[in-house]
Amino acid sequence: MVVDDIPWLSPAERRAWLGLVAVAELLPARLDQQLQRDAALTHFEYQVLAMLSEAPGRTLRMTALARRTNATLPRLSHVVKRLEQRGLVGRAGSPQDRRATDAHLTDAGWEAVVAAAPGHVRTARALTLDALTPQEVDDLTRLTGAMLRRLDPEGRMTPPD
Amino acid sequence: MVVDDIPWLSPAERRAWLGLVAVAELLPARLDQQLQRDAALTHFEYQVLAMLSEAPGRTLRMTALARRTNATLPRLSHVVKRLEQRGLVGRAGSPQDRRATDAHLTDAGWEAVVAAAPGHVRTARALTLDALTPQEVDDLTRLTGAMLRRLDPEGRMTPPD
Repeated sequence: MVVDDIPWLSPAERRAWLGLVAVAELLPARLDQQLQRDAALTHFEYQVLAMLSEAPGRTLRMTALARRTNATLPRLSHVVKRLEQRGLVGRAGSPQDRRATDAHLTDAGWEAVVAAAPGHVRTARALTLDALTPQEVDDLTRLTGAMLRRLDPEGRMTPPD
Repeated sequence: MVVDDIPWLSPAERRAWLGLVAVAELLPARLDQQLQRDAALTHFEYQVLAMLSEAPGRTLRMTALARRTNATLPRLSHVVKRLEQRGLVGRAGSPQDRRATDAHLTDAGWEAVVAAAPGHVRTARALTLDALTPQEVDDLTRLTGAMLRRLDPEGRMTPPD
């Protein structure tokens, strides 16, 4: 079979690609592992709590929270419901728009984030940032930024600050 | 609550970290999406077939295949069984070690990889490599390599070549 119009990867591109795929496979599993062991939270649940903890009034419209955690609204609703049953999050109609729902962090949810954050930050550092020089940290921002403009053209995952 | 021994992320580190987490969340989903739509394969299934297609005799010991796809043996066995039911992979006792099992790519499996590869390569390029200069491709290899020495200290995901 002769196929010569296919843009196969060069050896250099293949190395970069396999490295990226390996990081994308391994990192989420390792983050889940530490958080579930030490805080009984998945990384996704932690992200939900952390985004709420940083929002004004510790409250976000569900649609905004879905964007910031790269979740579909059904997936987010499912997880928020579970966090609500654990007393970490509450939901209420939005005062600004009665058709919309806001999620807010409860005091117990705030305490859960505060308790989980140090271990999560240490793990994040140990697995990734500690391996990089300050210049390489900036390189990582630049490279992931370039790829996110392809992966996330609407900027859903772009952090607000 | 005063906690001053926790190595919180600097703004520059936070940008790099959020970029990396976003790529690690979005890339696998996008790869699955294209492959499932166009080839009825998950990215993990594609990786299994691709690794076999590159091996001598299109055959690998199951333990070696698990290492190269970053899978536990139970997870790999489950997926290989499904690929076997579809006629894409076969399993047999290893001629070198009667306690070990080899997986091999069938002719139908080879044809499935050959058919799926161009679309997968184009997707991989469009989502990541096409956004990078040749220098940035090498930077990505260097950065992911540094992180993989933390994420994968035993080098399980390190490509053999």
